Amino acid sequence: MAVALQAPTHLAPISGIRLATCAAGIRYQGRDDLVLIDAGSDATVAALFTTNAFCAAPVQVARSHQAAGAPRWLLINAGNANAGTGSAGLAAAHATCAAVGQVADCAAQRVLPFSTGVIGEPFPQERVCRVLPDLYAALREDAWLAAAQAIMTTDTVLKGASRTVTLSGGPVTLTGIAKGSGMIHPDMATMLGFVGTDARIDELQLQALLQRAAEQSFNAITVDGDTSTNDALVCMASGASGVTLQSGADRALLADALNALCLELAEAIVRDGEGATKFVRVDVSGARDRAEARRVAEAVALSPLVKTALFASDPNWGRILAAIGRAGVEHLRIDGVEIFVNGVRIVADGGRAPAYTEAAGQQAFAAEEIDIVINLGRGTAAYRKYTCDFSYDYVRINADYRS
Amino acid sequence: MAVALQAPTHLAPISGIRLATCAAGIRYQGRDDLVLIDAGSDATVAALFTTNAFCAAPVQVARSHQAAGAPRWLLINAGNANAGTGSAGLAAAHATCAAVGQVADCAAQRVLPFSTGVIGEPFPQERVCRVLPDLYAALREDAWLAAAQAIMTTDTVLKGASRTVTLSGGPVTLTGIAKGSGMIHPDMATMLGFVGTDARIDELQLQALLQRAAEQSFNAITVDGDTSTNDALVCMASGASGVTLQSGADRALLADALNALCLELAEAIVRDGEGATKFVRVDVSGARDRAEARRVAEAVALSPLVKTALFASDPNWGRILAAIGRAGVEHLRIDGVEIFVNGVRIVADGGRAPAYTEAAGQQAFAAEEIDIVINLGRGTAAYRKYTCDFSYDYVRINADYRS
Repeated sequence: MAVALQAPTHLAPISGIRLATCAAGIRYQGRDDLVLIDAGSDATVAALFTTNAFCAAPVQVARSHQAAGAPRWLLINAGNANAGTGSAGLAAAHATCAAVGQVADCAAQRVLPFSTGVIGEPFPQERVCRVLPDLYAALREDAWLAAAQAIMTTDTVLKGASRTVTLSGGPVTLTGIAKGSGMIHPDMATMLGFVGTDARIDELQLQALLQRAAEQSFNAITVDGDTSTNDALVCMASGASGVTLQSGADRALLADALNALCLELAEAIVRDGEGATKFVRVDVSGARDRAEARRVAEAVALSPLVKTALFASDPNWGRILAAIGRAGVEHLRIDGVEIFVNGVRIVADGGRAPAYTEAAGQQAFAAEEIDIVINLGRGTAAYRKYTCDFSYDYVRINADYRS
Repeated sequence: MAVALQAPTHLAPISGIRLATCAAGIRYQGRDDLVLIDAGSDATVAALFTTNAFCAAPVQVARSHQAAGAPRWLLINAGNANAGTGSAGLAAAHATCAAVGQVADCAAQRVLPFSTGVIGEPFPQERVCRVLPDLYAALREDAWLAAAQAIMTTDTVLKGASRTVTLSGGPVTLTGIAKGSGMIHPDMATMLGFVGTDARIDELQLQALLQRAAEQSFNAITVDGDTSTNDALVCMASGASGVTLQSGADRALLADALNALCLELAEAIVRDGEGATKFVRVDVSGARDRAEARRVAEAVALSPLVKTALFASDPNWGRILAAIGRAGVEHLRIDGVEIFVNGVRIVADGGRAPAYTEAAGQQAFAAEEIDIVINLGRGTAAYRKYTCDFSYDYVRINADYRS
C-alpha cells in the first residue's frame, strides 16, 4: 500500500555503534521485536520526546536518564507500548534498564528504554530481561536493517536511510531508522527514530542539530492528527571517525545531511501512512508569519474531507478552500488566495480560476504524489506539511489493530 | 445507517409562518430541492452564521440582509452551495433575493438566501428564479416536513422536531428542521437549521435565546472536525400567537423548549453522521475551567483512532488516554484521571482500573450508544460533546460524494 516507497537493501554501519535484535515474543510470533543499541563508550546522545501529557513509562524513564547525562545504551521493543500501565509499568521500565546495566556492566541510568505497540497491556518485562544476555552477545555494527525491521508495528515497509558527507576533517557517515504509520502528527507522534553518526560532536550541538532537523521533517508530517504517548527521536554520535566540526561550514554540511536524512525517514512514514494511497505535500506561502502558514497547512493536511477527496482522486477543491477558511487566519480575503494542485491553477480571485477545467483538475488529482500549493497573498512567510490521503484501509487497519 | 434515529411523521405548523417546496432541478432529479419560507409580516428573525473565513456568497448576503433588519423571507436550496464561486456567485445570490422580492413585492433586503451542496460549481440562478412564482403561490403553514426533506444532501433521515410550551399568556409552539451529516463541527458546520415559533419576541431577545441554545447543541457536536462555508441557524418568531414573554419565568420556559429542540436536532445530525454506527457522548468533568474541559472533550471526540476503535467496538481505551494527553492541558497528572465507558470504570490511578476486565470493556463498547465519561480530577468545570464513530462508510460517502 505504501506510496512509491522501497525498503532500503543496505544501511551503512556506523563505526562505534553496535546493534542486536532478537525475538522476545512480546506480542508477535516469529519475528524480532527487541533491539539493543550500544552507542559506544565515547558517544554523545541527543533525544526528543513526545509532548503528550500521558507519556508512557519508558518515555518518562528515558527522559530522566537522558537528563542525568551519559546515556550509552538504547533498548527498544515493539508490540507493547508500556503506556497507561501505572506504577507497575514504570517499575517494569526501570527493571529492564537495570537488567541491561547488569549485562553491560554499567549504571541503569545509562540505558534509555523505548517501547511501541498496544497501549494499556501489562509489560512482559521477564520476556525482555531473559533474552538480554544473548542480545548483548550478538551486538555488531552491521545490524541497522535488522533493527529497522524489529521496531516495525503497523508499518508495511522497513524505513531506513544512510548518508555520507565529507567535512574538513574527513568523511562521516549517518544512518537512521524509523518506524511509524498511524497516529502520526508533530511532536514525535507514534514514531520512533534512531540516527547514528560516527562524527564527534558535543551533546549540546547534537541536540540543537537534531531539534532543527526534526522541525522540518518529523514535526511537519501528519497522518491522522493523533499524538502518541511513546514517541521519540534519538541521535547518537559515536565519535569513532575522530572527525569533529571545525567550522561553521562543517556544521552546515552535517546539518544538511541530518536534515535530509530525517526528511527522508519522515517522508517514508507518511508514504507508509496507514491506508495511504497518495503522498501529499501542502505548501503554504504568502502568509503574514510562519505560524499562520502552519495553521493553514495543518487545517488542509488534517481535513478528513480533503483527505477522502484525495483518496477518490476527486478534484473537489472546495474542500481545500473550506479548510483554509476555518484555519483561523484573521481577516483572510478569499480574493487574494490562489490554489495550485500539481501545477494546475484551480482557485484565483475568490473562485474557480478562469482557465481551470475539470479535466485538468482530474488529471492533477489522479497522480500518486500530490502537491497542493496555497498562496495566501498577504505576506512572505511559508510552511510545508506532508500528509497522505484517507482511505478505507485507514479505517480497516485501525478498527482491526488490536484483534 | 443512522443510529437510533427515526424521521418525524408530523411537524406542528407554526401559525403565521408559511412554507413551500419544489423541484428546481438544481442538481438532483426527481426530488424537491428548493424551499421558500415566509416568516410573516410581523416576524422577528435571529440568525447565526458560519465562522469560516470563506463563507459562501449566500452567507455573505444573508448576513448583510439580516444586519439591515426586517428580514421576512428565507430562500433555501440544496445541491449547490454557491461557495467558491467568486463575484458571479455573489451576483447570483443577490439576483435570487431580488427575484423573491419581485414575486413577494418586498425589498430584496428582506430575503435571506441559504445554499447547501457542492462547493465551487456555478450557481444555476435561472433554475431557481423561474420557479419562484409557483413556489410563492404554494406557501402554506403545514409544509415543515416537506421543507425538511427538500434541504437534505447526504442526510439519510429527515430531521425535524416540534415542542409546545405554555407561557403565562398561553401556549406557544416551536418547530425546527435541520440538515447535516458530514463536515459537522462547532460554529455552524455544514448544517442548516430553521426554527419557527408563534411566540412574540423582540429580535435582540430572540438572538440571545438562539445563541444560548446553539452553544449547548449545534456548537457541541462534531462528526469530522470540518467547518463548512455555508452553515446557518435561523429562528423566526411570527408573533401570531400574540403570546409574549411577560416574565423571567416565561423566558426560561421558552429557552428550555428552544434548547431541547435544538439539542434534539443537533443529536439527530450526529446520529445521522456520515457512516455513523454509534452515537457517542463525551462528558468531561473535573476540569479547572470550561475551556479546558472542552479541549479534552474535543480531542477525544475528534480523534480518528478513538473513532475507529468505537466503530470496531474495541475497548482500546489507551487511545482515549492518548487523546486526553495531547489535549494541551497544562500539568495534567495521569494518576488523577478516571475514565468510564457506559458505566464501566476503565482507567484509574494512572492505568487500567483494578476491577476492570476486558470482558466488561467489550460489553460496554458493543453498545450502539456510548457514554465516555472523563473525570480530570483537578477542578469542577465540565463540558459535554456529541460525536459518532468513524467507519468505512464515512470514507465511501466522502470519496463518492461528487460522483
